[in-house]
Amino acid sequence: MTTQQLHEQILQKKSFLCVGLDPDLNKIPQHLLETEDPIFEFNKTIIDATHDLTVGYKPNTAFFEAYGIKGWVSLQKTISYINEKFPEIFTIADAKRGDIGNTSSMYAKAFFEDLNFDSVTVAPYMGKDSVEPFLAFENKHTIMLALTSNEGAFDFQTLETNGKELYKQVLETSKTWKNSHNLMYVVGATKAEYFTEIRKIVPDSFLLVPGIGAQGGSLSEVCKYGMNDKVGLLVNSARAIIYASNGTDFAEKAREEALKVQQEMKEIINSKF
Amino acid sequence: MTTQQLHEQILQKKSFLCVGLDPDLNKIPQHLLETEDPIFEFNKTIIDATHDLTVGYKPNTAFFEAYGIKGWVSLQKTISYINEKFPEIFTIADAKRGDIGNTSSMYAKAFFEDLNFDSVTVAPYMGKDSVEPFLAFENKHTIMLALTSNEGAFDFQTLETNGKELYKQVLETSKTWKNSHNLMYVVGATKAEYFTEIRKIVPDSFLLVPGIGAQGGSLSEVCKYGMNDKVGLLVNSARAIIYASNGTDFAEKAREEALKVQQEMKEIINSKF
Repeated sequence: MTTQQLHEQILQKKSFLCVGLDPDLNKIPQHLLETEDPIFEFNKTIIDATHDLTVGYKPNTAFFEAYGIKGWVSLQKTISYINEKFPEIFTIADAKRGDIGNTSSMYAKAFFEDLNFDSVTVAPYMGKDSVEPFLAFENKHTIMLALTSNEGAFDFQTLETNGKELYKQVLETSKTWKNSHNLMYVVGATKAEYFTEIRKIVPDSFLLVPGIGAQGGSLSEVCKYGMNDKVGLLVNSARAIIYASNGTDFAEKAREEALKVQQEMKEIINSKF
Repeated sequence: MTTQQLHEQILQKKSFLCVGLDPDLNKIPQHLLETEDPIFEFNKTIIDATHDLTVGYKPNTAFFEAYGIKGWVSLQKTISYINEKFPEIFTIADAKRGDIGNTSSMYAKAFFEDLNFDSVTVAPYMGKDSVEPFLAFENKHTIMLALTSNEGAFDFQTLETNGKELYKQVLETSKTWKNSHNLMYVVGATKAEYFTEIRKIVPDSFLLVPGIGAQGGSLSEVCKYGMNDKVGLLVNSARAIIYASNGTDFAEKAREEALKVQQEMKEIINSKF
């Protein structure tokens, strides 16, 4: 998928919501445990209930790997289901990978070719040659951690280096990498005040924004400082939507929560575009 | 496995070699492609041929994930084979994971419980709460990236921050985390001169050292500056051993290469312990 197609989908659906698929057998409705593949069943039901309100789905690989081979099967079924039934939707493998060059190539192959995701999240610590193998895939997108939404973000990401915080250095350096036009960035919503600074460095890039909902970020603040003239935001919400209820009404409640966010987004888009 | 048990194994085998299992269907002997599970067959044969010369095996998850579910099955069979047949051997899931707290817990569950590895590699960028969930597992070991062996290591890891390079700050900060006694660190062999500095910060920790062999690092230099009074090193070699030959003699040639390294290690251990 191209960023232009993603942009068009956003304007059409009046939404830049991405739903995080973090299936946890201890949290999903317990009646699903009787099905053959509870994780896929849960994801599929959430997807069917929310696909017209969202432009992206972001399965986090940890929640699949924790269940071993069964989990990997559920992940494959989930991405195949989205690609077949809702091919217009942008898919993100939230995997936070990164390794030396030949190894990163194998990760890129895993997520872009074998599973056929539109994008994958990567970690920047190992630098250029750990990320460029992902960037070599045209019309695939590499979403690099810049400033994350967790408390530990302040351990290293905001350290002063060369007169600027590390996350800014990460953003600046990454722009010099080959095929950097295939980069997007993770920027946590819990720090909306940082968006102004970030937009000075990467005015045109899409930002994936976790931390809305359960993690406490404010949508209007994020949009005020982070939106660009192509919207340029994908705002992720996971727990607040997928675990809105753990009863048999979970799909309905998930839709209600997604709709609330989408309505807020619709107002913002209508006022700006 | 405790670090004491690892130390004892090192002295007994006169080896601190770890063999990296990076199976690539384009590089393994082509006659194996006719078997039902070429990747497991390759790993098993390498393990059988080298287990008395090595103290650790380090499958890199990228090389399994690239083959989807089949690859994950091969990974599970590989770790189960090592755990059942050679339980004294230290196993490392080279996965370089890291995410917000509840997600890192799922990764820890995947590698420590579901797959039953002794250790897993993690990336530091997301800070304390992305690593502590791994550290909570007693007698399991979390091997954090400090200074890696690739060219991109110089993009961010060696940036000056608070008057010291980032990788030193990462080492220092990590020592304050809960259960930090379960930490080990990745330090690339291509930069042996850095070991003196690193040992000032983490004198007692085990260091996992990639970059010997195909990546060009020198074993004697690493030992000169990196060894502590408990050895404290696990030196990894992958390609130079596992791809020593791609013919039907690959196991024999892998053993020859592993033996060369082990003999060099034996001399060093005998001269120091």
